[in-house]
Amino acid sequence: MSKGDISVFAPERDVLKAASRRIQSSIRRTPVQTSSWFNARYGTELFFKCENFQVTGSFKARGAAHAVLSLSDSAARKGVATHSSGNHAAALARAAGLRNIPAYIVMPENAPKVKIEAVKTYGGIIRFCEPTLEARETGLQQLVEETSATFIPPFNHTDIILGQASAALELLEDVPDLDVIIAPVGGGGLLSGTALAAKRINPGITVYGAEPEQANDAFLSLRAGHIIPAQPDTIADGLRTSLGDITFGVIRRFCDEILTVPEDAIITSMRDVWERMKIIIEPSCSVPVAAIGLYPDLFAGKKTGVILTGGNVDLDKLPWM
Amino acid sequence: MSKGDISVFAPERDVLKAASRRIQSSIRRTPVQTSSWFNARYGTELFFKCENFQVTGSFKARGAAHAVLSLSDSAARKGVATHSSGNHAAALARAAGLRNIPAYIVMPENAPKVKIEAVKTYGGIIRFCEPTLEARETGLQQLVEETSATFIPPFNHTDIILGQASAALELLEDVPDLDVIIAPVGGGGLLSGTALAAKRINPGITVYGAEPEQANDAFLSLRAGHIIPAQPDTIADGLRTSLGDITFGVIRRFCDEILTVPEDAIITSMRDVWERMKIIIEPSCSVPVAAIGLYPDLFAGKKTGVILTGGNVDLDKLPWM
Repeated sequence: MSKGDISVFAPERDVLKAASRRIQSSIRRTPVQTSSWFNARYGTELFFKCENFQVTGSFKARGAAHAVLSLSDSAARKGVATHSSGNHAAALARAAGLRNIPAYIVMPENAPKVKIEAVKTYGGIIRFCEPTLEARETGLQQLVEETSATFIPPFNHTDIILGQASAALELLEDVPDLDVIIAPVGGGGLLSGTALAAKRINPGITVYGAEPEQANDAFLSLRAGHIIPAQPDTIADGLRTSLGDITFGVIRRFCDEILTVPEDAIITSMRDVWERMKIIIEPSCSVPVAAIGLYPDLFAGKKTGVILTGGNVDLDKLPWM
Repeated sequence: MSKGDISVFAPERDVLKAASRRIQSSIRRTPVQTSSWFNARYGTELFFKCENFQVTGSFKARGAAHAVLSLSDSAARKGVATHSSGNHAAALARAAGLRNIPAYIVMPENAPKVKIEAVKTYGGIIRFCEPTLEARETGLQQLVEETSATFIPPFNHTDIILGQASAALELLEDVPDLDVIIAPVGGGGLLSGTALAAKRINPGITVYGAEPEQANDAFLSLRAGHIIPAQPDTIADGLRTSLGDITFGVIRRFCDEILTVPEDAIITSMRDVWERMKIIIEPSCSVPVAAIGLYPDLFAGKKTGVILTGGNVDLDKLPWM
């Protein structure tokens, strides 16, 4: 992982497109869906990039595939490792399978069952740990020392960001004249990739990050000008992480604003998407949808792209139950 | 409604295509989705026609639009009327809106809340009745006498069947070389349309209807050679109706077999689709999916089209909770 002060990661359009091409045959080109109900409700024209239909059930398949496919043969042979509460873990396990190399995954014991099962399905080798960031990092360090596997972090990594950028690139190929694009922000890998892709394709586009009020580290960090770690207490389990130095730098430069939303709006928007669009999204994924409802002036009359990030939900524990 | 002995309704390909064209701009061309998980699990190549994404949340929008658009101006002016437990009701209310005419809907008091709301959203005028077929029919008769509206039945009507056939026509345009096509059967409108479309486009294709064991009137009726009314006791609320004379005739001639499935398989398959495909389908909609799992020999190695019929579920009452 990069440490300390580095210059901002700012790849040009060609680099972004090359990364997208590299993973093209390893991921799914997800559809862009529309909803007349949401358009009428929010007075905007929304284009939902459905990464909940992505292989592994989330956009994380993109970054993981790109990171694994970018490894040298000698590094790849020793495998890859990570810690993750879920979607990145499954994505990395699957990506490792693309090269027939082992994936070692440190997961908190309280990770959603459906996400643990997904890692197992893809042949990932799981080591459970206490549900703290510290325990995850210690567990990972031990694993890497034992196996010499390459650590592929969930977001603070240029190859991950380049992979995640491909979602917005595809969306802009399908709907070139977007005025606005919005994505959720946890660790910032997706938002970094989205902002880079959007601004490199169309410098005039506006890019928003959407974040739970109760995990508003990106909002606070951008205000402060330095990273303020999250004190997360949100149902959006994919957004409980804090920005890294690379993602902070990219977002500070390429993202226009961070919009925060309360928990009840996250749950209501999630249910609205299920009910109206008949697609399953996880709580993290409804955060930008909630933001559109809460900041209507920013979106009225605009063509807005929304990255729907994932659909991995424990169907026995729905937040409105 | 047609009564007594009639010759089998057997429109040719041109008639089916003309009906499809007539409603084209009034409905959504729904996507065909695939799932590597289901393909691997069932050893078949499945193509899901996602009518859960159809306007009004079900394929019923097709038949209703076609019936309403086929009315003469003088008949249309007096409005349309029907009784329905849900999806047809919303579809007819919406279709009436296409011509700015009133839709009078008799609904059982215990219809799912989400379906009642949908009818209201589309401006339908609801009259509630006891949850029996008799009460529905009496309520409807009174309504029609009062208003002179045209009764548009949910399934036993040639214009409805012609509309429903458009889903299979589109599916076969997108995937022309299907070996098999399967749809659920309740009153038989969708299955009639599906079988007609499939056999008129490709006489060699195999057409299955899928039905709950606990609402197996189509299965029993085809065996007996005459209509045996349903004694339904199934979670698949869209499939509790019995065949009508027109749909019985079409299905007897154009459908190869009816496959029945138990309740637990309906629930399991519904959950599998939610979890693996990240799309919301209602219980009736999972009946053909369950059938593919229960009769694997019929589908192994084949290219199979599945009509996913609808996604209108009360999210507060999920069957696995």
